[in-house]
Amino acid sequence: MSVTAAKGFAAVGLAAGIKPSGDPDLALVRNLGPDFAAAAVFTSNRIKAAPVVWSQQVIKDGSLQAVILNSGGANACTGPDGFADTHSTAERLASELGVGAIDIAVCSTGVIGHRIPVDKITSAVPALVARATEDGGPLAARAIMTTDTVAKQSVQTRNGWTIGAMAKGAGMLAPGLATMLVVITTDAVVNAADLDAALRAATHVTFDRVDSDGAMSTNDTVLLLSSGASGVEADPGEFTEALTTVCSDLARQLVADAEGATHDIAITISGAASEEDAVVVGRSIARNSLFKCAMFGNDPYWGRVLAALGTTQATFDPDAIDVSFNGVLMSSKGFGVPDAEVDISANREIRVDVDLHAGDHAATIWTNDLTYDYVKENAEYLS
Amino acid sequence: MSVTAAKGFAAVGLAAGIKPSGDPDLALVRNLGPDFAAAAVFTSNRIKAAPVVWSQQVIKDGSLQAVILNSGGANACTGPDGFADTHSTAERLASELGVGAIDIAVCSTGVIGHRIPVDKITSAVPALVARATEDGGPLAARAIMTTDTVAKQSVQTRNGWTIGAMAKGAGMLAPGLATMLVVITTDAVVNAADLDAALRAATHVTFDRVDSDGAMSTNDTVLLLSSGASGVEADPGEFTEALTTVCSDLARQLVADAEGATHDIAITISGAASEEDAVVVGRSIARNSLFKCAMFGNDPYWGRVLAALGTTQATFDPDAIDVSFNGVLMSSKGFGVPDAEVDISANREIRVDVDLHAGDHAATIWTNDLTYDYVKENAEYLS
Repeated sequence: MSVTAAKGFAAVGLAAGIKPSGDPDLALVRNLGPDFAAAAVFTSNRIKAAPVVWSQQVIKDGSLQAVILNSGGANACTGPDGFADTHSTAERLASELGVGAIDIAVCSTGVIGHRIPVDKITSAVPALVARATEDGGPLAARAIMTTDTVAKQSVQTRNGWTIGAMAKGAGMLAPGLATMLVVITTDAVVNAADLDAALRAATHVTFDRVDSDGAMSTNDTVLLLSSGASGVEADPGEFTEALTTVCSDLARQLVADAEGATHDIAITISGAASEEDAVVVGRSIARNSLFKCAMFGNDPYWGRVLAALGTTQATFDPDAIDVSFNGVLMSSKGFGVPDAEVDISANREIRVDVDLHAGDHAATIWTNDLTYDYVKENAEYLS
Repeated sequence: MSVTAAKGFAAVGLAAGIKPSGDPDLALVRNLGPDFAAAAVFTSNRIKAAPVVWSQQVIKDGSLQAVILNSGGANACTGPDGFADTHSTAERLASELGVGAIDIAVCSTGVIGHRIPVDKITSAVPALVARATEDGGPLAARAIMTTDTVAKQSVQTRNGWTIGAMAKGAGMLAPGLATMLVVITTDAVVNAADLDAALRAATHVTFDRVDSDGAMSTNDTVLLLSSGASGVEADPGEFTEALTTVCSDLARQLVADAEGATHDIAITISGAASEEDAVVVGRSIARNSLFKCAMFGNDPYWGRVLAALGTTQATFDPDAIDVSFNGVLMSSKGFGVPDAEVDISANREIRVDVDLHAGDHAATIWTNDLTYDYVKENAEYLS
């Protein structure tokens, strides 16, 4: 399972005392080789946490030996001291592993604006390294949880090689990733450039299309590490396909665990003049608070779908649009279908299909409903 | 008070049976002259309700005799039949007043996607005209309410002339106006071109900067009518100033009555490289669900302010930004001020000041917190 499903990786999670609750809060994923190729994508938020700034630098040579991840503190908006904390963390782990700090990526998640207890992290590094095992993936996945209610893991195996992955994130999932940490490992033989291309292709149609609340985190990171331990060179097309499957599975798990949600909503825009138009229209609906409240109320209120997409500049004729809920056409050519009815209360998943009748492109955006519990969790998750 | 504070206008509101509750739901504002100049601004949503499409046409000649407004149904996304309903409404009132339908503006508000009971409206037109009086403004303001808890009215008087106004809107207030109907009257002598210029200048810095939930309505309309009944020609600068004061007052009233809100929040961005940058940054914060939940939780979580503005492309150095809550500097140069504390729970109004240190421009955006009651109202306001 998880990041140790692929050969050539050791992992672990433990409680270092960062979280006052005493829950696990520190994780290690170590590449045992023989290859050490790596790629990453990061948040597009211009306010970047210290670990993001650090990891963006160390990934530049396409190589990583290990990733250290903490929950219980985002180390974002912490200034030069916060960056020094990340640096110390990487140096301490590098020293323990006998490698350079430039081979260590760092990820953090939690509340913004507070220093992390770096002494607790560096003190725990020897135990972290000593306890990491080739079946420790689930422990690592557990240790990176914040408001997550379940650990997220995914595995795909192809001809002689495997991709394994873990993720954390719940709510606050947004375009270009958000409060989301993902570590993906593979034992396929893939060079850094191909890892990078595959990762960008996979995230573009998966994590980038999850839009839970329109927010975007300071800390989002997706890392992909290859050990080459299978000795099998992966076909690039097949590798990208398998990686996309893993990312799609994790993205669905993130949506399913979004803070306080009662519905997962797949908004599919078809008949768009371009893929970008489809994405823009899908996002405008996914971010509309009134639409999201209607979904919570189990009301297939197609009028709010039209009102939301009307705010975009995408190509369409307002009098040519069809809107369906769970396959039932509720609105056609811009107004309601007489006597159309659909019960969307029964299942957690709701499908909203919008046909713009303006072209041949399509895209699906995933989001959630807006609920009392979303407000409660985010009003009480204090800084 | 209201639209009859200015001389030369008659108004009324009554219950025409559109709302099942039996509450007032139909209003008339009639210009008694001698001038009939008018101007208007409408929603920028591309999905426009039938009355918006109609009113956009009839305002083109810069002249109106009357406005008829109904609550209890938006007449949006109702197709050609819905447009015919608006047309019939205007024709019936025009016939009763002995003018052309081209002199009648129509406004509707309520649920999207259903036909309005046009027979009830046209049947009520004779009573509407008969009962309209020069002190009937408050009755009209009452009849256009939907989820509003109070009627919104505002009056400004200058040297010999008056501006009076009414508005409806609660929540769903967004850029470029939203689910907001406003009728403003004046007895100043102002021609249609000057009315138009003043109205655009005033709405640009008032209604356009209220952003309650990022949604934008299909029906938003702001109408300005001049009777010239004071006989006093208004100085253009003074007229724009007074009109801006009225619009600002109404915008504040709309925010104060936003659905389920417990805080009104004034987000002022200063030190921006341009006014547009200031508006973009202010909106990014105003629309951030996590920030809005933190405000509901009375948590001056400046990290969410930075995370929100980091998603924009405005000019700034992330390490140069200051954030204050109610005048207390909480974060400076991108990280927290040690031991800074502020209690934002005491007052309904919260001031968030962000200094980008990137220029000399500023703007204020008004919004609300995101609460249980917002979700409840919008989940239960069924289509």
